[in-house]
Amino acid sequence: MAKILILNAGSSSLKYQVIDMDNEKVLAKGNCEKIGLEEGIFSYAAAGNKTVTYPQMKDHSVALNFVLEAITNKQNGCIKSLDEIDAVGHRVLHGGEFFSKAAIIDREVQAKIEDLIPLGPLHQRANLQGIYACQKLMPRVPQVAVFDTAFHSTMPAKAFRYAIPGEDYTKYHIRKYGFHGTSHKYVSQRTAELIGRQGKFIILHIGSGSSLSAVNNGICQDTSMGYTPLDGCLMGTRSGNIDASVLPTLCEKHGFDVNGVVNYLNKNSGLVGLTGASDSRDVDAMAANKDGKYSRSQVENAQLANEMRAYRDAKIVGSYVAALNGVDAITFTAGVGEHDAAYRERVLGYLTYLGIVIDSKANAHIEEGEISAPGSKVKVFVIPTNEELQIARETKAELGL
Amino acid sequence: MAKILILNAGSSSLKYQVIDMDNEKVLAKGNCEKIGLEEGIFSYAAAGNKTVTYPQMKDHSVALNFVLEAITNKQNGCIKSLDEIDAVGHRVLHGGEFFSKAAIIDREVQAKIEDLIPLGPLHQRANLQGIYACQKLMPRVPQVAVFDTAFHSTMPAKAFRYAIPGEDYTKYHIRKYGFHGTSHKYVSQRTAELIGRQGKFIILHIGSGSSLSAVNNGICQDTSMGYTPLDGCLMGTRSGNIDASVLPTLCEKHGFDVNGVVNYLNKNSGLVGLTGASDSRDVDAMAANKDGKYSRSQVENAQLANEMRAYRDAKIVGSYVAALNGVDAITFTAGVGEHDAAYRERVLGYLTYLGIVIDSKANAHIEEGEISAPGSKVKVFVIPTNEELQIARETKAELGL
Repeated sequence: MAKILILNAGSSSLKYQVIDMDNEKVLAKGNCEKIGLEEGIFSYAAAGNKTVTYPQMKDHSVALNFVLEAITNKQNGCIKSLDEIDAVGHRVLHGGEFFSKAAIIDREVQAKIEDLIPLGPLHQRANLQGIYACQKLMPRVPQVAVFDTAFHSTMPAKAFRYAIPGEDYTKYHIRKYGFHGTSHKYVSQRTAELIGRQGKFIILHIGSGSSLSAVNNGICQDTSMGYTPLDGCLMGTRSGNIDASVLPTLCEKHGFDVNGVVNYLNKNSGLVGLTGASDSRDVDAMAANKDGKYSRSQVENAQLANEMRAYRDAKIVGSYVAALNGVDAITFTAGVGEHDAAYRERVLGYLTYLGIVIDSKANAHIEEGEISAPGSKVKVFVIPTNEELQIARETKAELGL
Repeated sequence: MAKILILNAGSSSLKYQVIDMDNEKVLAKGNCEKIGLEEGIFSYAAAGNKTVTYPQMKDHSVALNFVLEAITNKQNGCIKSLDEIDAVGHRVLHGGEFFSKAAIIDREVQAKIEDLIPLGPLHQRANLQGIYACQKLMPRVPQVAVFDTAFHSTMPAKAFRYAIPGEDYTKYHIRKYGFHGTSHKYVSQRTAELIGRQGKFIILHIGSGSSLSAVNNGICQDTSMGYTPLDGCLMGTRSGNIDASVLPTLCEKHGFDVNGVVNYLNKNSGLVGLTGASDSRDVDAMAANKDGKYSRSQVENAQLANEMRAYRDAKIVGSYVAALNGVDAITFTAGVGEHDAAYRERVLGYLTYLGIVIDSKANAHIEEGEISAPGSKVKVFVIPTNEELQIARETKAELGL
């Protein structure tokens, strides 16, 4: 009868779900947005009904109060009383080198999460706000932290170390951590279920933020995000991989300091830098230009951005085939990975040397399942990610519920 | 009867060769080092004899005078008079987007080379010093510039553009240029000769500086160095590929500004950062620790550096197999690529999924030729690079000699 509240706190938001772990069904979910502003947005969906209100939520504790009120509300709450919540599972950005798996939040774990603030200040502080709010409002309910980095903690040193002086690693903890770990773990496990065995898997988590992972027998061997989520793929607003020597020129031309230029690479680059639009659906519309409303240079930029994205992601897949010395399955997930058949086709077009044969019909319509044809030497899947369910499962497992 | 003088000017050095193009034989070669210091080093080798002297050479023009005196010297000169020199071929670092092939140096070409100084100040200025010295001392001999970037100028936009705002490319010329182009061109042509046809080739130019290229039917499709030579491989003193978001932390911890941190990534990183030694032979000695004189952490660091280098280079190969959608031949060249059999074995160990089978005996002893076994699905070669000969050939071709 375990019911778990899942919280994912951002700097001004608090996403939540209540999951009944007996059947892994979502009982309710929603989001608190614009926390700290005069008018917030509070959404709540349960039993097919969704409500949206606009209350002021001055901090995460107030926001959590709205959540707890909504889920126990007599009219459309999903539970009768808070006593039904057996645990809270928190998505936490950074586990550093401390956490290779989920952890029950006690004083020591909390202190370590606080120690890791410098590695991801904005997100880590927000995640802690969610933890503090629960401690205040539901002090007797056990809380578990599920780290976005944990799945990648198994990477070998040859994959996670940078080629900079050793002290920068030992003293300043500069290394590749990787992110989206909860998604990569969920999707790689689901891939093993669909293929009927473990093996060499490459996961493409492609959304507004994107990362790939190379997974061998359930163990992560490499991933494309690095010290922070900036590295790797061309993303909605992030440049991904770039020659570091570009930074001094960008600083000189734009008047940035080193923090300014990294902010530029995080916020003004990627799709939005190349095309003006960060959402890949807008970029696709620009590239197709069905109504003829875009200029020639807009259309060309959008087409180039799509080409670059697929080319670069295919190159990362290729590099992971070498890292694993082979591949049994390739799986696409997250916003673009799940819904953009043309993107998948572009990426897979580079990989026919692996003996991949695509079932174009399946690729065009699939929600979850195989999109490779029967003769394909490598299986290719689309799998919707479900980070909340993965967090709930790990929370349940940690607490032995 | 064409004899060509090849010059490769560095900031304080001037390497030279005289090549007889009738048989492509090197008649004389040497180096002027420590130009500008009180005591320079001048070496000259011809007909099996080598001499070294220590004259002061206050600038490149004085150094070139020593070269011209030595090659025409009555005792051991390789020619009787400077009239025998039909052309000078200059290695020039940067051709920017102007030069997709070698160019006869006239006023316009020289002005463009000067315009490109900002893209590689140290080297480009040095190369120009070599050109100015020739104009002064041998004004009637035609000069040709052979650009280190030219071979890569055929890369498609999806390979050479960075995912940053378009203006940074159109206005500030920030893009991937690639380097070592003369070597990649020579070695890819030689690969085609050895395999008996053109095809999909991946070239690993691995030395103290390192880069890979993906070449399809003689046309470069991608390369691992970028806007500058910093990006890509783990090199002797360069970090290669690194998450740009590491830079602010390095700046904060070490007190660098943005130029300082890029200098640190260029000069204090790579092998020397990980192990204290930039020469891979020293790193190998440390890793083997035959005399037991290294500490455990030194041995471990050296072993990790070797593992990282091979792993990262293998991943780049894998990414280029995807870029080319297949591969017919893989060729190793330059200092490490030509002479380090253990390095090659480590890289190729990741690539057996391609059906590569290595002839271990050939790999251990080869100077030039195939190191893959007869059944191998991809041919693997070792080919000594020869940038001077390539420069001489292009110089000859440009002038129609």
